[in-house]
Formats: sequence, C-alpha cells, structure tokens
Amino acid sequence: MSLGKVVLAYSGGLDTSCILRWLLDQNYDVICYMANIGQDEDFDAATTKATKIGASKVIVDDVRHSFVNDYVWPAIRAGLIYESRYLLGTSLARPCISVGLVKAALDNDAQFIAHGATGKGNDQVRFELSCYSLWPDVKIIAPWRIEEFTERFQGRSDLIKYASDNNIPVSATPKSPWSMDANLMHISYESGILENPNNEAPHDLFQMTVDPKKAPTDSFKLSIEFSKGVPVKVITQDAQVFNDALEIFTFLNKIGGKYGVGRTDIVENRFIGLKSRGVYETPGGYILYVAHTDLEVFCLDKEVYRVKQSLRDRLSDYVYNGFWFSPEGRFVFDCIALAEETVNGKVNLEIYKGNVTVLGRWSPVSLYNEDLVSMDKHSDFSPSDATGFINIQAIRLKEYNRFQKQQK
Amino acid sequence: MSLGKVVLAYSGGLDTSCILRWLLDQNYDVICYMANIGQDEDFDAATTKATKIGASKVIVDDVRHSFVNDYVWPAIRAGLIYESRYLLGTSLARPCISVGLVKAALDNDAQFIAHGATGKGNDQVRFELSCYSLWPDVKIIAPWRIEEFTERFQGRSDLIKYASDNNIPVSATPKSPWSMDANLMHISYESGILENPNNEAPHDLFQMTVDPKKAPTDSFKLSIEFSKGVPVKVITQDAQVFNDALEIFTFLNKIGGKYGVGRTDIVENRFIGLKSRGVYETPGGYILYVAHTDLEVFCLDKEVYRVKQSLRDRLSDYVYNGFWFSPEGRFVFDCIALAEETVNGKVNLEIYKGNVTVLGRWSPVSLYNEDLVSMDKHSDFSPSDATGFINIQAIRLKEYNRFQKQQK
Amino acid sequence: MSLGKVVLAYSGGLDTSCILRWLLDQNYDVICYMANIGQDEDFDAATTKATKIGASKVIVDDVRHSFVNDYVWPAIRAGLIYESRYLLGTSLARPCISVGLVKAALDNDAQFIAHGATGKGNDQVRFELSCYSLWPDVKIIAPWRIEEFTERFQGRSDLIKYASDNNIPVSATPKSPWSMDANLMHISYESGILENPNNEAPHDLFQMTVDPKKAPTDSFKLSIEFSKGVPVKVITQDAQVFNDALEIFTFLNKIGGKYGVGRTDIVENRFIGLKSRGVYETPGGYILYVAHTDLEVFCLDKEVYRVKQSLRDRLSDYVYNGFWFSPEGRFVFDCIALAEETVNGKVNLEIYKGNVTVLGRWSPVSLYNEDLVSMDKHSDFSPSDATGFINIQAIRLKEYNRFQKQQK
Amino acid sequence: MSLGKVVLAYSGGLDTSCILRWLLDQNYDVICYMANIGQDEDFDAATTKATKIGASKVIVDDVRHSFVNDYVWPAIRAGLIYESRYLLGTSLARPCISVGLVKAALDNDAQFIAHGATGKGNDQVRFELSCYSLWPDVKIIAPWRIEEFTERFQGRSDLIKYASDNNIPVSATPKSPWSMDANLMHISYESGILENPNNEAPHDLFQMTVDPKKAPTDSFKLSIEFSKGVPVKVITQDAQVFNDALEIFTFLNKIGGKYGVGRTDIVENRFIGLKSRGVYETPGGYILYVAHTDLEVFCLDKEVYRVKQSLRDRLSDYVYNGFWFSPEGRFVFDCIALAEETVNGKVNLEIYKGNVTVLGRWSPVSLYNEDLVSMDKHSDFSPSDATGFINIQAIRLKEYNRFQKQQK
Repeated sequence: MSLGKVVLAYSGGLDTSCILRWLLDQNYDVICYMANIGQDEDFDAATTKATKIGASKVIVDDVRHSFVNDYVWPAIRAGLIYESRYLLGTSLARPCISVGLVKAALDNDAQFIAHGATGKGNDQVRFELSCYSLWPDVKIIAPWRIEEFTERFQGRSDLIKYASDNNIPVSATPKSPWSMDANLMHISYESGILENPNNEAPHDLFQMTVDPKKAPTDSFKLSIEFSKGVPVKVITQDAQVFNDALEIFTFLNKIGGKYGVGRTDIVENRFIGLKSRGVYETPGGYILYVAHTDLEVFCLDKEVYRVKQSLRDRLSDYVYNGFWFSPEGRFVFDCIALAEETVNGKVNLEIYKGNVTVLGRWSPVSLYNEDLVSMDKHSDFSPSDATGFINIQAIRLKEYNRFQKQQK
Repeated sequence: MSLGKVVLAYSGGLDTSCILRWLLDQNYDVICYMANIGQDEDFDAATTKATKIGASKVIVDDVRHSFVNDYVWPAIRAGLIYESRYLLGTSLARPCISVGLVKAALDNDAQFIAHGATGKGNDQVRFELSCYSLWPDVKIIAPWRIEEFTERFQGRSDLIKYASDNNIPVSATPKSPWSMDANLMHISYESGILENPNNEAPHDLFQMTVDPKKAPTDSFKLSIEFSKGVPVKVITQDAQVFNDALEIFTFLNKIGGKYGVGRTDIVENRFIGLKSRGVYETPGGYILYVAHTDLEVFCLDKEVYRVKQSLRDRLSDYVYNGFWFSPEGRFVFDCIALAEETVNGKVNLEIYKGNVTVLGRWSPVSLYNEDLVSMDKHSDFSPSDATGFINIQAIRLKEYNRFQKQQK
Repeated sequence: MSLGKVVLAYSGGLDTSCILRWLLDQNYDVICYMANIGQDEDFDAATTKATKIGASKVIVDDVRHSFVNDYVWPAIRAGLIYESRYLLGTSLARPCISVGLVKAALDNDAQFIAHGATGKGNDQVRFELSCYSLWPDVKIIAPWRIEEFTERFQGRSDLIKYASDNNIPVSATPKSPWSMDANLMHISYESGILENPNNEAPHDLFQMTVDPKKAPTDSFKLSIEFSKGVPVKVITQDAQVFNDALEIFTFLNKIGGKYGVGRTDIVENRFIGLKSRGVYETPGGYILYVAHTDLEVFCLDKEVYRVKQSLRDRLSDYVYNGFWFSPEGRFVFDCIALAEETVNGKVNLEIYKGNVTVLGRWSPVSLYNEDLVSMDKHSDFSPSDATGFINIQAIRLKEYNRFQKQQK
Repeated sequence: MSLGKVVLAYSGGLDTSCILRWLLDQNYDVICYMANIGQDEDFDAATTKATKIGASKVIVDDVRHSFVNDYVWPAIRAGLIYESRYLLGTSLARPCISVGLVKAALDNDAQFIAHGATGKGNDQVRFELSCYSLWPDVKIIAPWRIEEFTERFQGRSDLIKYASDNNIPVSATPKSPWSMDANLMHISYESGILENPNNEAPHDLFQMTVDPKKAPTDSFKLSIEFSKGVPVKVITQDAQVFNDALEIFTFLNKIGGKYGVGRTDIVENRFIGLKSRGVYETPGGYILYVAHTDLEVFCLDKEVYRVKQSLRDRLSDYVYNGFWFSPEGRFVFDCIALAEETVNGKVNLEIYKGNVTVLGRWSPVSLYNEDLVSMDKHSDFSPSDATGFINIQAIRLKEYNRFQKQQK
C-alpha cells in the first residue's frame, strides 16, 4: 500500500534522482516538481528522466516573473544584503520555489513535500520554514537527515552505484570539485575545494560573469529609473529601453556578466551557526544594489534612512534564515515599502571591468536642495545659526570634560 | 590694545590668508597653525607667506603618525563607514588637527582658536566640538559665521581684492570650479559644479587615483595581516614587506592610486540636515576596508558580529558629526576594541583596475571549522538535529498561520 | 507703524501677560491664543485679562478631543516612554497646541508666533519645530531668548514691577517654589526647590493624584478594551461603561488620581543636553500604559514585538525632542500602527494605593495557544525536537569553547 | 555493566526522584547534585531521600554567594529585564547551577549530566547551553524528551505509582495546581490553572511577598549605594547598615516581601516560540531595579545611556534564552561594565504597600549640573544659542514640508 503522495523538489541531478527512486522504493507515490527560476537546465530531458525513473507526474513551473517581481524587486527595494556582502540570491529563490511546491502538493492532494537539501545547510531551513508557513500541516521528508538514507548513501560513489543499479542515467561529465546553485539572480558556489577559506577560487568556476580582466576594454553607460524603490526602466547608451521586470533583470545580468561585475568571495555565518565559505556572482543584482543605494540616500530623509537601514539589517537576517513568510518578515517588508514611497528617480551608471560607477542621480521631487547647500547663495538659515547649534551640542561635551576632571 | 591671542588653523590658501589679515586688523595677535596630515602642501612657502602677512608665529606640526595610529587605524578596526559608502577621511582628520590646535593654544597662552570652515558644512562642527571637548574654556572665532566678515567678503572677488589691497600673494593658477580637502587618507571634492548631483564629476578632478581605464593592464597581489583588527603587515607579490603604520598606509595609497581603486561619488546627509554631493578618493583606506571586512566576518562570532555592526553604525554617525571625543564616542570605541581582540589573521587580495578582490583569508585561531562544515565529514552534531531545530523554529510560523486564518 | 501681527501662546499667567504687554510696546498687533488642553484654567478671566492688557483678539480653542485622539492615543498605542520612565505628557501637548497656533495665525493673517518658553528647556524646541514643520515661513518670537527682553526681566521681581507699572493684575497667591505644566494627561513639576535632585518632592505639590497613603483602603477593579492598540472601552467593577475617548481618559484620570497611581520622580536628559529633574503625575496615562504593555506582549508575535519596541524607543526620543511632525516621526508612527493591528482584546486590572495590577488578559484571536503550552497535552511538536534545537544552538557555543582553548 | 556516571540536578521532589530511580534502572551510576541557591528546601531530608533511592553520592552545594555576586549583581548593573517586565530570576539561576553541575561531573569523572526540565520550556535550553559552553564534550540526559520515559510517565499518577512501587516517599501534601521555581532572587509560578491567561492568580500562591493590602500601613525608608553600577551598601531608616552582597540582597528580599513589592503577572514569549503565562515575585530584585534605573539615568551621559540600553535589550534576550556563557553574552556584559564605571552614588527610597518610590538621588561626581539647568543662573551657554540650534534642526523639517508640497 502506498505511504502517500509526495511532491519532490526535483533538479534532474544525481541526488534528487536517487531520492526519487528511494522514495518510490519506500512505497511513496512521487510527483516531481521543477521550478524554472532562471537556471540553465534542460527541463525536457529532466522530465523524461524523472518519468523514466518512476515519477507519477512531472511539473515544470515557470516562476521567473514571480521570482523577479515578488522576491528580487522587494529585496532590491529594501537594499537587502547579508553580513555586508551577500545579496541573498539563493535565499530569495527558496520561498518562491516553496510556493510552487505547496501549490503542487495541494493541487494534487499530496501529503508530503520532499527535498534534497543537506542537513548542515541553510536551504533545508528555508524550504521547510516557507512550507510550514504556507501550509502548517505539510509533512516534510528530508532524506539527507534520515539515518536510513544517510547510512546507505555515505558518499557520491554510493549514489552512483545506486543509480547504475536502478538504471538511472548519470551525467558523463565528471562532477566539479564544488557544488553550485543557480537561478536568475545569481550562481553560488561552495563546498569541496572551496572549503579551505584560504584557497583561491578557480578561474573556471564562474558561469554568469567573465573575469574582469577579460571584459571589454571599453565601458558601458546606462541609466536605471526607480519608482517607489523598484526598478521600472533601463535606458542604455545605445538607446535600448527595457520596461518589463524580467527583461530589465535579464538585460542587467547579461551586461553585468559581459563586463565582469558582481563577483564576491566571502565567509558567512549560516543560520545554524557554522561558518561557511561561499563564492557568488550576481551581475544584475549588484548593478541594481549600487544604483538603489545611491538613489535611496539621495531621496530619503536623513533620519528615515537610518530607521530604514536598521530595518534592512533585521530583514536581511530574516530572509537569509528562511523567515520570508514570517510575521516579522511581512511586517518589516511593509514598513520598508512605506519608507520607499519617495524613492523615485534615475541613476546614471558606467560599467567597466568589474566596476559599477555612479555618475549622477536625479529625482523629480527631492529633498536635495541645490540652492540651500550652495556656498554662493543666501538661504533659509543664517550661518550664525550654526554657532548656536554647535554651542548647544557642546554643552554635553563640556560637562563631560568637567566630569572627567572631577573624577581624577 | 590687543584683543588677545588667536591660534588660526592656517592652510596657506586665499581664505585663511585673508582671515589672518582680517584678525590682525581686528587687533588680535595671531599664531598660524598648520598640521602636516599628509596633504600635498609647501609648508615652507606657506610659513613665509603667513609671516609676511603678519602672523606672530607659525607652527608646522607633523601629525601624520598620530593620524594613522590614533584615528585611521581605530576607524579601520571599527569598520567605520558613513551612510553605507563614505570612509570618513575628513571626519577623522578634524579631531586629530584639533588636538594640535588646542595644544598650540595652551602652549602659547592663546585664548582663541579660529578656523576658516564655512557656516553650512560639517567641518565647523567637527573642529569646534573637538576643541570644546578638549578645552571647554576655549573661545572659537569662525569668521564665516560673523556677519561683519560675511558682509565684507561676499564672494571670491572680494577676497582677491582684499588680498591685493593687503599685499597678500594670490596663486596665479585659477581656482578649480569645486573645492577640495586633502589628507593622508583621502581627497574630498564638493561644491561648485559638483552641486548639481546629476553632473558627472570631471575626469581631471582626481589627484590620488588614476582612472581605472588608465590603470595598468596587469593586476597586483598582496596580503595584509591584522592583529586585533588593526593592520600590522603588508606583503606584496614582489616580496616587499611593510610593518610601520605610516609606511603601510602610504604604500597602500600608492598602489591603490596606481590601480584606480577607492573612488566614490555620493550624496550624503550633513549633520546640520542638508543633503550634499561629495566625490571622494580613498585608495589605501578602501583596500583596508575590504580586507578588514572580510577578516572580521571570518573571525568574529556570528552574534558578536551583529552587536559590533550595530555599534559601528552608531559610531560612524558620531565620527561624521564631530563627536570623536564625546563620551559615547569613547565608550563605543572601547566596546569595539573588545570585540576586535579576536580579529587576527591575513587576507590575500588582488587589485586590478578599480577592483579589490579577496582571494582568501587565514587566521591562526579561528571559529571557522573546515571539518564541521564539510559535507563529507562526520561531526559534532547529527543532521537529524536540524529536524528538531527547524520544527521548533516552525512553531511560531504555524501559530501565525493559525492566527491569520482565525482573523478572516 | 505696526511691526506685524503676532499670535501669542497665552496662559493668563504673569510671564505671558508681561510678554503680551511687551510685544504691544514693540508695536506688534497681538492675538492671544489659549488652548484648552484639559488644564485647570479660568479661560474667561484670562480672556478678560488679555483684552484689558491690549490683545486685539483672544482665541480659546478647545483641543481636548483632538489631544486625546490624535496625540495621546497614538502614544499609548506605540507604548511611548522616555528614558524608561516618562510618559511624555508635555511632549504630546506641544504639537497639538502648535496646530492651533498655526491655524490661528493663518486664519488671522499673522506673520509671527510668540511663546513664553524659556531658553534652556525642551518646550521652545517642541513648539518651534512643530510650527516650522506645519508652516515653514512662520517667524517665531521667543522673548526669553531675546537679549533686550532678558536684560530687562532678570527675575520675577522685574516682571511683577512691570506688571504693576502697566496695570496688569498679578495673582495674590504667592508663586510656588517650583514651576508646573498641566494638561489633560499629566502635570509636570520642575525648577526651584526641585533642582536639587536629592531633595524629596514636597507632599503638597501633587494636584492630580492623592498620596497613596491617603488613597482608599479598598481596591478598584476595571477592564480596558483595546482595538488595534487603542483603548475603546472601559468597564468598571460597578458596571460603569465608557466608550468615548475623552470620557475614557477623563475617567481613568479621576480613578487613577483617587487611588494615587502614576507618580514619578526622575532625572531626565533634555534634548539640548542638560540633565534636569522632573516630577510627574500621569494617572490615566499610567493605567493605560500598564494595560497596553500587557496586551501587546500577549498579542504580538515575538519577533514583531522586538522590532516594534526598537521603533518605540526611537519614536519616544523623536516625540520628546519635538519631532512629532518630522518625516521620521510620521514614518515610525505608521510602522507601529501596522504592527498594532493585531493588538485587540481586554485587560483586567486592579487599582490599589498606587499599584496598577494586571489580573488577566483576553483576546478574541490570539497567538497564545493554551493547548500548545500545556504540559498535559500532546501538541504539534514533539519534545524530542527540542533536543535538535538545543544541539544546533550549541554548535556555536562549542566552537567558542574550542576557540578559547586554542587562544591560550 | 554500568552505562556510565551521571550527575543529576536533583530537587528532592517527585519528578527528579523518579528520574533518579529510572536512571538507576537504566544502569547508570547516579550522583545527585543540589544547589543551595536560596530556595526553601530541607537539604538533609533530600539527601537522605536520594541516598535511600540509590544515589551513589549526594552533593549539596551552597552557591548563594556566587549567585548574588556573579549573576544577580551583573544583571542589576546591566538593568536586565525581559520583554519590559520579567527580571529574569530563573534565567540567572540556571547558568549558576550549571557551573556547579559541570564541576561536580568533572570532579567525579562523570560523563553525563541529567536534568528534569520539560521539553516545552526554557530551562532545558538554559541548562544545556550553559553546560555545553562550559564543557562541550558533556552528554546530556533529558528524560522528559526521551520517548521511552515520556511514554511510561504520561501524567502525575504514573509518577506516583512508580514512586510507590519503588519505595520512593511521596509528600503527603497535595500538589498545588501550578508549578513553581524558587531561588534567592524570586519565585516563579506557571502551568496548571495559570495556563488560562484570563484567570486571576490565586491569592495564596505567593510565598515571598505579602499581598500589598495586608502590608504594613506605614512606609519604610532606606537608601542604597551603588559603586560602578553594583549595590554596595544599604542604610535603613532605623540605622541598619548592610555591606555584604548576600546580606544586602537577603535584607531587601525581606523588607520587600514584608511590604508587598515586586509581584508581576505576565504573558511572555519563550525561546522556543510559545507564549506562556508566568507570575513572579522578586522583592529585592525589584527594589534594586528601581534604584539602579534611577541612578543610571542620573549618572550616565545621555548618549552613552542610549547605547547601553540597546545593549541591555540584547543581553536580556541572551540571558533569557540561555546564552549567559556565549561569546555575545560575555562581550555585551563587558561593554556594559565599561559604561557603568560612572554609575556611583546613592538613591533614597520609600517602600509602601507594593510601591517603591524614589525620593532623591546623589552622586559624588556627576554630569548633573544644578547651576547649568537653573532658570535663575547665568551659565556657560546663552539662551540665544538655542535659536540657532532650533533653526538648524528645522532645516530638515522645512525641506520636508517643501517636498510634500511638491509631491502633491
């Protein structure tokens, strides 16, 4: 008798193919779910493969528009960045894919969702917290945390043998000595030879961006327009115009990749407390991060900016840790959206061999006041006001000096 | 009868030369104080000029070692950065110069300190708050906030005429259409044609760094060693070694400048509430910022890092606003120094046409645990623990789902 | 010729009566504005007095409903409290009165607003920042900061002599040796004999609350209902019911006063950097603060509560410092209102001799889950999950132990 | 063959007596560890009982001095309070007891530590994280999370039957319908009839404090002296003087209990995400909290206070969650100790029927400046300085008004 119906987050690779077979062996009915989230994947081949292994159904779900509009854009608007440097490409993909998994499960009367994420990483947490948020009654199967499974598959060779024993086709190309995760926003690389944090990442690792040294010797200028903190238009030096979210993002990835921008090599703190080394390339996301940061300081009131940045820091952690759909996640996103209502305007950029340089910025309605700041113009306040301002600020400092002398 | 003795922060330029003369006209006895803080200046010529105008004494004070050790290094250790992008080059120089001004005043029995900072800027605040902190009884003369002075000198032509009338030599080279401030750490540019935030900064503005497009076509590798968060050694690809603080910083400026790194063009919020556009080049400071950020996340405990970053954000504001010597400034610097005691190790970097790339990092004693994070090794915790971890984290999310359903 | 038209914030007391006369002497046309914000005041007598002194018009503006609905309620909803203890009674009144002042000025084509706040206090800042926010072109007259005025009136005797010379009636009752400010929310006391922070406040100082020792020997029970964080109903032990905002607040003041609750004696930090001693009585506000605090932790998600509290701390400072109408003030109020949408329910209280005790709380829809927390019931998660949760939390701590041992 | 040696945190009650017996049944060698942390307990009787059941050794450890000096005092100095109201009495005891448990285990060559904390609470986390921090190799046995144990003991009657079957004496007095935890600092009550958050706590629940209504009708005055944020002396109205930490705390508990102060009834968020209702009485701790809060705002610089409070909020969470010995815990305690170096002086208090009222405060060296704040004295700054201060603060607000008008 079947143990029930499982929706498996399927990639077409060795791991999830073996998990598919193993779940079938356990007597589950398995539906394979693949999200097209912009990764470079032959979905037809993967479908054929899953069907051949025994999936009762294969779902290929194009979530690219939703990914950009509902996950990447809010992250750009918020300026999300984890531990000062990571633009959260994988973290944003997980809740988006989870929505698809849950929908597939509910549509098909499945009781289980299974995934191939490992037991030491962040993705297991992100998938599961997202799924539990959306569907508290879901039962999760995470084979890499099941003793029976991990005892059986102690290394890659065990998987290969199992695949061979079960007529699961294995890619002829040897596995690269690291693991990667790709989506429309970025590719991340970790594990294997990257685990030694002092090892330089190999040059042939990168797939979305060229080495800056091999990038064109000219530069590329473009301007990006934002409305309420979200990109709405790109105009390039050669008069190309992009208005659609997915087209904007795809173009920025292409041009960013061509010019070698958005690579980063870091050690980060995983949610579960481990330090881990990751190499990322996020060409379009990085261009947008630079542009949005510039426009935001330009447009936001000084103090509003400070509140917003403190919320941004919290939200970056929430998203990294898998709390996209949490009450605090929803709350802080809403707060930031309020702040960003005045982030409107255009940023001019030049891209050259790994550099994204801001050349200028403009806003239709702005708190920037050229007359006020000008040294050459009279304005609303008199320079002598600054004397009073400074004297009042100094009260506390003079008292502190008095205090220190008394203490001695 | 003399109104008293003034120590004037003198630069040798038109403004402070006119201020010197004007103070003498007012019947002050004026001592000119020049800090050698790494700017490109002919101190002998400036001394001659000040003496000729009528200064009773000229002090040239080489504060470069103190500037690096006591101001730049603590800022690097803390990771100070204002509004996400400005490395605070000018803000760090002001308290350092103020120490020299106060010392000169006390040594020479002066009652006043005068400066040529304008009434709309940050530097007036930084100078004066630093001086009041160090010497609460000081009397400050800020001519650009004195009505009599500002009425008389309404534009540059009034200054030139006054100079000419008073035999003050005026530089033959025409003034650039912006203002600048230079020290060992950076040059800042603002005002004039830069006031329109949409105008691209002119290419001939920069003096410390070459245009990345004109930088060498090869790259340059080096490694920087930190002890307790402070740089202590630089080793280059060609086996140059630097141990002395000033030598390290000077070398990094040189190599950074040659490879075009550390330029930034921003709009920032001044302390007094105006938005202002600034262009900065900070070659050595930027290299150190990148390296220190990398090593810090590598070395600090995850939660300690978060506390430290929140302190860093506060401290960046304090320093920008002139509160270097304030109780909160001293307190937070001390806290951060405590945290940074474990930031020890080495970062390998590659510098190329505006890019500073981290290649790897190493620490003699580290919270990074290669065995623990490895997918291929058994370790202290069992993957199945993650199941409990996630389930507990999910409690709150499931409750929230329940709550939302009830609310409908 | 008249220098223009002034709206003066008039109290009927000696100070503002003299200011009125002095402004007339300066040749201003003066309209007296009195806000009825709940203080105990004979507005008719004050009107007669102002008219007699020479005011061209006297406006008495009943702002009590607006004060409660637009200022006190949002403060209660946000849980505002300054430096852990001050419920901001005066700070909330100032922006409310400023709205009236600006409206009076615009309605009557006045160019100036004048007030009698001193040059060392917070109220000058609160009045003026509020007025500038609402009407940037207003010109403020603050006589206590005008040298000509302060030289003439160096002490209370100068005011009394001036009043007598100008036929201004002076109250026969001698001035109390402290100053006070009263409104519907609280009375504050400061200055005079209170300036020594070690002097006990005199027992006869308090006017809204009895000494707890003289309060009834029985207790009083009531319950307060909140909707979206705002009080909407009070039901008492003797079946009185209050629904109207002003009636709710007036009743809570009365009952709180009778039972001696809401007194506090503190030293606080003024905006301008001075430390100052203040004694406050806030009977109704304190009862609401206790009740709202209780319901909020009960209703809000754990993490949302933390974000909200950090916003609360910022907002308390904004309001204390006079930034009610600032961009950051408006932004943070809006964020908090979002969070408070789920703060609905009822708190049962007992009031007795200075104590406000929470007896229980209830919410129609709540994140509190009695079944889940019960030791005696099975629930959604298994206790064994806690093992994994703890083990994962311990990873970082074990690593820290390892690290410390290595360091030695 | 023995499975090894266990140190069991033993209380003498039914639960841990059954656990002791059960561990023996499992073939462990069990040492019972009892910390005397100030709870009301007959240690001799408990020792006899444990020995009779079969403990190989019973350790009674008087940790009261360490508890006050090393846990309570640092908490008072930091002003720790969880979710605005809970003074963390239990949270502080757990790491203190854990030190004793680990020491007992290491001294006696035990491999295991066992405790009777339940699987839904905070204490399991606090015990285990403390033990893992101190001794990463420890193995923890938590029977209430072991399925075999929880299946066998599904309710209190199972425990009683097991006790009876095994000749374990059971107390004749019926169990109260709630659970409690007592130490020198407080008693906490939860579970049972308290689980309904709308049920009033029964009057006979409290053991450390009398009902304020039954407290004396007079008041009691005392003053508390602090050095570097820590209490060092208490002087009472009847000239009693206490200098020793334990004596100070014991006396404050006694007098606070007699006058009915320090009760609180709250719903709080547990670490694991459940909301839970707790009733606490913390007489001495509450008196010290009030006094320290008062002195701290009096002594600390305004901005240092703000930084310190933000650290306090973080630290309160760390301690509640069991991270006393964590890197972030140690770091933040050290930071706060730095800030508190200037918190020196004396607070005068009056205690009366549940109220702790501050009457005055004094510091030998203080930032409070009576001359400066006095309305009647000339001082360091001129009132006219405030005009400039306000005008500069208003720049941003006027710009915001301009901005809002443009937007329409």
